[in-house]
Amino acid sequence: MSSFSFEDLTTEDVDAAEALWGGLTDDVRRLLDLTIRSRVGPEQVARARAMLQEAADLLAEDAPAEPAGVHYNAHGRSWNWGNTVVGVRNAFAPPVRLAWGDDDVVRSAVTLGAPYEGPPGSVHGGVSALLLDHLMGETASAAHTRLTVTGTLTLRYVRPLPLGPVRMEARVSEESGRKVTVTATIRPDVVDAEPAVEATGLFIIPRWAYQPDPDTGPTGIGSLD
Amino acid sequence: MSSFSFEDLTTEDVDAAEALWGGLTDDVRRLLDLTIRSRVGPEQVARARAMLQEAADLLAEDAPAEPAGVHYNAHGRSWNWGNTVVGVRNAFAPPVRLAWGDDDVVRSAVTLGAPYEGPPGSVHGGVSALLLDHLMGETASAAHTRLTVTGTLTLRYVRPLPLGPVRMEARVSEESGRKVTVTATIRPDVVDAEPAVEATGLFIIPRWAYQPDPDTGPTGIGSLD
Repeated sequence: MSSFSFEDLTTEDVDAAEALWGGLTDDVRRLLDLTIRSRVGPEQVARARAMLQEAADLLAEDAPAEPAGVHYNAHGRSWNWGNTVVGVRNAFAPPVRLAWGDDDVVRSAVTLGAPYEGPPGSVHGGVSALLLDHLMGETASAAHTRLTVTGTLTLRYVRPLPLGPVRMEARVSEESGRKVTVTATIRPDVVDAEPAVEATGLFIIPRWAYQPDPDTGPTGIGSLD
Repeated sequence: MSSFSFEDLTTEDVDAAEALWGGLTDDVRRLLDLTIRSRVGPEQVARARAMLQEAADLLAEDAPAEPAGVHYNAHGRSWNWGNTVVGVRNAFAPPVRLAWGDDDVVRSAVTLGAPYEGPPGSVHGGVSALLLDHLMGETASAAHTRLTVTGTLTLRYVRPLPLGPVRMEARVSEESGRKVTVTATIRPDVVDAEPAVEATGLFIIPRWAYQPDPDTGPTGIGSLD
């Protein structure tokens, strides 16, 4: 099984690993996109496949079966390299990076190309749900100062979202005991754009985490998305 | 821009293209997974990267900028190769395949590995939303006999969904005029498993498509997801 575990690594070690694997991930991300868009002939596809298979065999020489999990070190650094939305080693992840504003709004801007398509030329409605779910979970966790889990998520699809640059915003709209309500939007990243999808989520602070005992669990981990 | 267009291809041509590009997509899917799980050293990563870059350059020799779009031929075959959930040329797509049951339940079973991780060892909550959104949209479209768009989608997260084999079910629970309500679940694909996520979606048949004129648009296309 995958784990949520302490790793005896310096933050510099983690940075170096992210640079190494992040480069490989960029290459795979480019391939994910080109596999959809390319129109080369069968011979070129066959040559490309031979190279990809050789590269994959090389990577498979030491590849434990388990997924990446979430890890943290003694210096407050945590990393979830496989995460579908933010994972540094996940080539599908755009990847999303969050900016915590002074105005309590959490923002993110990404560019979504061919791999994120649903209706022709538009972002798949489920991709908007995926990205907003993650952004809202992180928002509920208040910059990783508490742990939350998703209770319910409601999405209202207002208009199509064209592929290309998009931006998201989320904020905590209400808090009551262990319940945190977050609202969010995603829209084209152009001036005066209206939201394409509006979302409301109810996030829960687990009972065991509501009055955390520093001796029984890691802190600073944030949303379990 | 991407398009929703007629292509003058035989169904055999489409099948042959799907076999060619589907093979490449399988290779990229394996790389997406291995990039997360591999623990080989920096030299092997560098060698793998050189191969991937050479393969990508080859595919980029003829790669128009636009995404895949959705296409159909004169024989009722349609294809959306880039689609995030079902696209034959999208290495992130598990891919999902739907089975339309005699009992009006639409089912799908897939295995979700490292690229779909959120909490350690579990499927990302947003991935469940992505897959259910697509399944429900296709269900609302009644096996591609009408066109629907997503109005609202509500997801209730009941319990964690472990990575591994999962199964989904969806059915139309209510219809009224242009409104179609669909309910769905996702759960581990094991005996007696309880749902991890329960979803309800309201799908809309666009006004222009409610009484379709066969001369003004393609038929048999289904959900715009």
